[in-house]
Amino acid sequence: MDKKLGDVEAAAVERAPALDLYEPLLIDKEKALGAIGNGHIETNNGTSNHLAIFGTKVSPIESLDYELIENDLFRQDWRSRKRIEILQYIVVKWTSVFLVGLLTGLVAFGINLAVENVAGLKFVYTVNLMNTNRFVLAFVLYSGVNMILVMLAAMLCVYVGPLAAGSGIPEVKAYLNGVDTANVFSLNTLIVKIVGSVGSVAGGLIVGKEGPLVHVGACIASLIGQGGSVRYGMTWKWLRYLKNDRDRRDLVTCGAAAGVAAAFRAPVGGVLFALEEVTSWWRGPLLWRAFFTTAVVAVIIRTGIVWCKHGHCGLSGEGGLIIFDISGNPDNYGLQELLPVVILGIMGGVLGSLFNQINSKIIIWSNGWLKKKGKCAKIAQAVIVAFITSVCSFGLPWLATCQPCPTTLEIPGETKCPTYGRTGNFKSFHCPANMYNDLAGLFFNTNEDTVRNLFSKGTNGEFQFSSLLIYLVTAYSLALLTYGIAVPSGLFVPAILCGAAYGRIMGMVMASIYGTGPMDEGIYALLGAASFLGGSMRMTVSLCIILLELTNNLSLLPFIMLVLLISKTVGDGFNDGLYHLHVRIKDIPFLEAHPLPFMRHLTAHDAITGPLVWFSVIERVGTILEVLHSTKHNAFPVIDDNFDGQDEHPVFCGLVLRSHLLVLLKKKQFAERRKRGGGFQQYGSFSSAEFAKPGSGKGLKITDIELDIAEEEMFLDLHPVTNTSPYTVVETMSLAKTYTLFRQLGLRHLCVMPKSSEGQPIVGILTRHDFMPNYLLNLYPSLRESNHRKAHAFPSFSSPSQP
Amino acid sequence: MDKKLGDVEAAAVERAPALDLYEPLLIDKEKALGAIGNGHIETNNGTSNHLAIFGTKVSPIESLDYELIENDLFRQDWRSRKRIEILQYIVVKWTSVFLVGLLTGLVAFGINLAVENVAGLKFVYTVNLMNTNRFVLAFVLYSGVNMILVMLAAMLCVYVGPLAAGSGIPEVKAYLNGVDTANVFSLNTLIVKIVGSVGSVAGGLIVGKEGPLVHVGACIASLIGQGGSVRYGMTWKWLRYLKNDRDRRDLVTCGAAAGVAAAFRAPVGGVLFALEEVTSWWRGPLLWRAFFTTAVVAVIIRTGIVWCKHGHCGLSGEGGLIIFDISGNPDNYGLQELLPVVILGIMGGVLGSLFNQINSKIIIWSNGWLKKKGKCAKIAQAVIVAFITSVCSFGLPWLATCQPCPTTLEIPGETKCPTYGRTGNFKSFHCPANMYNDLAGLFFNTNEDTVRNLFSKGTNGEFQFSSLLIYLVTAYSLALLTYGIAVPSGLFVPAILCGAAYGRIMGMVMASIYGTGPMDEGIYALLGAASFLGGSMRMTVSLCIILLELTNNLSLLPFIMLVLLISKTVGDGFNDGLYHLHVRIKDIPFLEAHPLPFMRHLTAHDAITGPLVWFSVIERVGTILEVLHSTKHNAFPVIDDNFDGQDEHPVFCGLVLRSHLLVLLKKKQFAERRKRGGGFQQYGSFSSAEFAKPGSGKGLKITDIELDIAEEEMFLDLHPVTNTSPYTVVETMSLAKTYTLFRQLGLRHLCVMPKSSEGQPIVGILTRHDFMPNYLLNLYPSLRESNHRKAHAFPSFSSPSQP
Repeated sequence: MDKKLGDVEAAAVERAPALDLYEPLLIDKEKALGAIGNGHIETNNGTSNHLAIFGTKVSPIESLDYELIENDLFRQDWRSRKRIEILQYIVVKWTSVFLVGLLTGLVAFGINLAVENVAGLKFVYTVNLMNTNRFVLAFVLYSGVNMILVMLAAMLCVYVGPLAAGSGIPEVKAYLNGVDTANVFSLNTLIVKIVGSVGSVAGGLIVGKEGPLVHVGACIASLIGQGGSVRYGMTWKWLRYLKNDRDRRDLVTCGAAAGVAAAFRAPVGGVLFALEEVTSWWRGPLLWRAFFTTAVVAVIIRTGIVWCKHGHCGLSGEGGLIIFDISGNPDNYGLQELLPVVILGIMGGVLGSLFNQINSKIIIWSNGWLKKKGKCAKIAQAVIVAFITSVCSFGLPWLATCQPCPTTLEIPGETKCPTYGRTGNFKSFHCPANMYNDLAGLFFNTNEDTVRNLFSKGTNGEFQFSSLLIYLVTAYSLALLTYGIAVPSGLFVPAILCGAAYGRIMGMVMASIYGTGPMDEGIYALLGAASFLGGSMRMTVSLCIILLELTNNLSLLPFIMLVLLISKTVGDGFNDGLYHLHVRIKDIPFLEAHPLPFMRHLTAHDAITGPLVWFSVIERVGTILEVLHSTKHNAFPVIDDNFDGQDEHPVFCGLVLRSHLLVLLKKKQFAERRKRGGGFQQYGSFSSAEFAKPGSGKGLKITDIELDIAEEEMFLDLHPVTNTSPYTVVETMSLAKTYTLFRQLGLRHLCVMPKSSEGQPIVGILTRHDFMPNYLLNLYPSLRESNHRKAHAFPSFSSPSQP
Repeated sequence: MDKKLGDVEAAAVERAPALDLYEPLLIDKEKALGAIGNGHIETNNGTSNHLAIFGTKVSPIESLDYELIENDLFRQDWRSRKRIEILQYIVVKWTSVFLVGLLTGLVAFGINLAVENVAGLKFVYTVNLMNTNRFVLAFVLYSGVNMILVMLAAMLCVYVGPLAAGSGIPEVKAYLNGVDTANVFSLNTLIVKIVGSVGSVAGGLIVGKEGPLVHVGACIASLIGQGGSVRYGMTWKWLRYLKNDRDRRDLVTCGAAAGVAAAFRAPVGGVLFALEEVTSWWRGPLLWRAFFTTAVVAVIIRTGIVWCKHGHCGLSGEGGLIIFDISGNPDNYGLQELLPVVILGIMGGVLGSLFNQINSKIIIWSNGWLKKKGKCAKIAQAVIVAFITSVCSFGLPWLATCQPCPTTLEIPGETKCPTYGRTGNFKSFHCPANMYNDLAGLFFNTNEDTVRNLFSKGTNGEFQFSSLLIYLVTAYSLALLTYGIAVPSGLFVPAILCGAAYGRIMGMVMASIYGTGPMDEGIYALLGAASFLGGSMRMTVSLCIILLELTNNLSLLPFIMLVLLISKTVGDGFNDGLYHLHVRIKDIPFLEAHPLPFMRHLTAHDAITGPLVWFSVIERVGTILEVLHSTKHNAFPVIDDNFDGQDEHPVFCGLVLRSHLLVLLKKKQFAERRKRGGGFQQYGSFSSAEFAKPGSGKGLKITDIELDIAEEEMFLDLHPVTNTSPYTVVETMSLAKTYTLFRQLGLRHLCVMPKSSEGQPIVGILTRHDFMPNYLLNLYPSLRESNHRKAHAFPSFSSPSQP
């Protein structure tokens, strides 16, 4: 290898006028080639590439390309672009978001139907057995069905689509932050997510389908954004417009918004959720497109519900959607409600952040344990959790004393006591006639029905204090155990369950002090849910809007805001939001919105460690091949090293992408001689479409390239594919400001230029990994102290101001 | 002057090792000093500074400083910052947004009360005269009151607060884009805006108070964000945290959101309006703070309305707020409604963009005309418009035939016919008993009441076709005339009036075809209003949410979205949104979100024209003084020119701000000798607070500095105040990507570095003005053609994708 390199390099050195300046580069280059995996990315953590946990699987990660690659090919394409093509692009864009909305809506509705029917059948048969006093058989049936459903979900997750486990929101967040990993939005993942989600929810676990729906929306969007599939012959010409990371990012954002909109029937809440929690960059036009998507979803879901009302949906009662319509209620809440609302906020902050803390610890611990035990252990873990959950939900209602049915019901026609149907507040369970078991109304139900029971208005005194307390403790513990096992599992519903339980407890306390005030226990339950969500997830506006859209009543706005404000503030005092913690547990190189304070003490130069690997403007094919084989870098500086002997400094020309080099190598249009001016004509037969970026993990790989020795000795003019306008910083730039530049512009590579005019024309390239706090603090351990002190001084909802 | 410079410069030249590289700089510097107003900003358009029209006044403009100035002083301050100070900062931040919400809510409510009472009294007295058949006297009273009110508003606008004219939304947009001008948010402007807005709305003009409320909210926010006032002794220590442009920007954003929220009682709509239409940069934490502000506003307005219901508010009936609550309506709209909705969308697009076009032409023409005629002409123009409006609103109802009162009214108790009170659908006007004049119900009313009449449900057939047509034509023409005269004037209400009029016409047409369908004429009016707003202002999500919050019914969402989508698309086919056009008419150097396509053909270097003016790291005081006198630049590169004779290239150290230099000059802590290392100790007595940026137009000026000759011969070490991390680009960077960097990071100055290592260490500085398309196209006329072709190819709701 050294030999092959030798010829060209030596020639360059011979002719290079300023040898002393130039040599370091050569040495670096050889060093990089000499030891595989010694490039500047690799040295960061000593491994050959970066890994993060997606779903429950450890996957290699890359970054996405959002930067416009302004090379000659791009400019030629730009100039030749016709008006009709722009129109096509717009049509494709809007059609694709329409499809995202349509499909997400349909899938969400389908999941609802499936869950309601599967769980409904399970309950119907169990109750039938219980009515004939065959309780043991009933338990066997109930827990057996639950375990089988969960096992199915877990097996799918482990064997078919490991990236479908969990809620998927951290994964979507990571993708929209520019982190790319293969299969996170693949068809496998989508199918497993859908089926597994039905299994885990119908299997009685304390999980929701709301988080997974966000992932489902993103998957659908990403699949549409693949720009067709060559393998399956779906290569419609217009689809090529979507073959780039920017448009895919926009689509996935819309998909995430559609998922939330479908989960909560909250079109505005969905858009704001995507805006506040999921995306890292936001563009004005996207707001409108996302909103269009969620409106399509809303129309689909509404149509579906109307269709269900005509009895087409089997056991699906209310469509499995959480709805809490209190639009008719009086809104003259007074000051006496202020104190309990503040207390709810504080409780939410404390319990939510405690949840984050314990859950993180459990996941870290069980990740380590499961790594050793393998795939079967993951399935066993899921089944055991399902069994425990079944025991709790079947066993604990026996602890409750039977309550006599209330004689006056707010809505006599609609609410019956005891309820014998599948849904309803008043479960008979083991109680005699005209009595009901309030704890069974919470435990022995789908989670959505439990939420509806807790939220139900005009049912003051329906639940006993002890029952709610038992339910709160059990649901909290089970949720802690469950989130993290290898099934699709959302966290919205568990959070709402816990929050609604203690909210209702608070409402009962208030009622016992003031008598029946104007505020219903159901409203306290809603505020409790808000507080737990705020304390755990730390979202604000989007949660507020989602809850408002659920209740369809603006008069609760001040209370919901107050609760969220307090619970978020209290929670932020303890730790970060749940999704944030999970992004960190999963080791995802996430770029936060603001640089950490300690970065002010460093310069851009300080973050560069590895040697630089570069190419000459006209480079030997063999050298390129070897470099691509021996490094994992995705971009290389191109330097005009004056190989033809003009007495000048070497000049930095720009960056060339690995993917573009691979296309060139594949095409084999090489020059025989090393001379300037071959340039563009050489690639006359290339269209810019060939350089378009396919979906994750679908591009050319270096192993696809095969060249003979004669070809390796030929030359490639890199001019036409060199991005001559990469973003640059001077090496003395403070790292904090460098970070801001990198993050705001969504870069993948940032060139660091030398301060002094003497020396090499480029100092190094910074990538996402070079900005990771852990990496930097390992390089500069003395900053740890300063980081620790300062980082805590800034709560996450404020950014430091300019003094 | 040349002599004074001479000493130091000559010494530098003598010792400079690479004279050939270095000389161009010296020459430039002398040239710049030799001719006042020859700096690089000045050469852009040949005038001494940039001017734009704010309100109706031509004002000089500056840019805002959003960049973190990382100099030694900043770093020292950063290190010494205590935890308690950060807590104080957070408390100040939240207190200030709370105050913004509180005050905006109170002011909005006050304006409503004032308008309702003033206009109410006017109508009561006029109607009393008409009831006694003294019609001429009634007209004299009516038109007289109108003209006096409008004259008052115009006089205030012309003499006291010229920047208060118009809606103010373009001004707020400009400020949040980084354009700074004195007095745009001053106390004068605020007071004139409030009083003038009452005058123009109560004076019967076809204007709204919604746009002005946005400006009012922004003014209040900016005044709070001044960080106290030294002049009035309000210098509370904590307020210093707000003394910077970033925090002020955030506050003003919240203020704008509060204004919209107050205008429409739409807290969510207000936040989204600020996000979609007003701001140029948006940060996640801001979303929550803005929402908090609008929630405070909503609570205030709600409390106020409850208070009014107890009869404290005089003639204020419904609080002057547009409310259209249809939450009870059925929502089974069918496919037959699709066609009229599409037609409404197209009509909105056509009429809205036509409105933009004609209004812009009228304003450009009248601006030119008024420039010659002076202040009195502006007042006369306003009074004439008021007279024409009075003639129309008093005269045209005589054209309508009297209608018999409907025998069955939907809400018999609440709606009486004819209505004798101030508000109500059925105006008697000149009609006999039990008859009403439908045109008077539209014209002879406050605009808000007219909107309420047009939106009212269950009143199918109340308005005649001819009446609506007359109203539409008149309102459209009057709105065109009115927007642009020297009074505070919002455009939301005129747009809603026109749109609702043709919407209702469409509803009548539909009713005549299908009989009474499920969709009320009032809903058609709402959709019509949506279409006109969409066609003229081109907002989408925020309009949609505002209209949803008005109607409180989510089932209309699909129709509203469809209408907005169509009207925006149609409108975009003709011209830009109204506020956009006005920003351009006002000559504001607004930085759009995306670079124009022709910028791809230029490099960063191509945009630099003027000579560079720079300072040495240790500079003679006299030189600094002269440069500050002779140029208007706000930042200067600091170059280490090795004055002490080391044999090295000159090195670029960073940027120093004019405002910081002025503070240093004022303090007079100079060194006697030119030597290194004086550094930081020299400024030991400085606190970073002294360098904090005061509000617009409040800082030190060069004329405040007086130095004697001995002081001028001393030296100033610029190290401690030099921002050593300014953002830079290489001169060969494409201008489009340079623009993206500049715009995304919200810069004021961007340094352009040389490509080649030989030559001067910095090529030039780019500012906002250097990116203005007109400036660039004047420099490179050959690009005009390409710009024209491409710019039209990209509709404003899509950004070009990477191919």
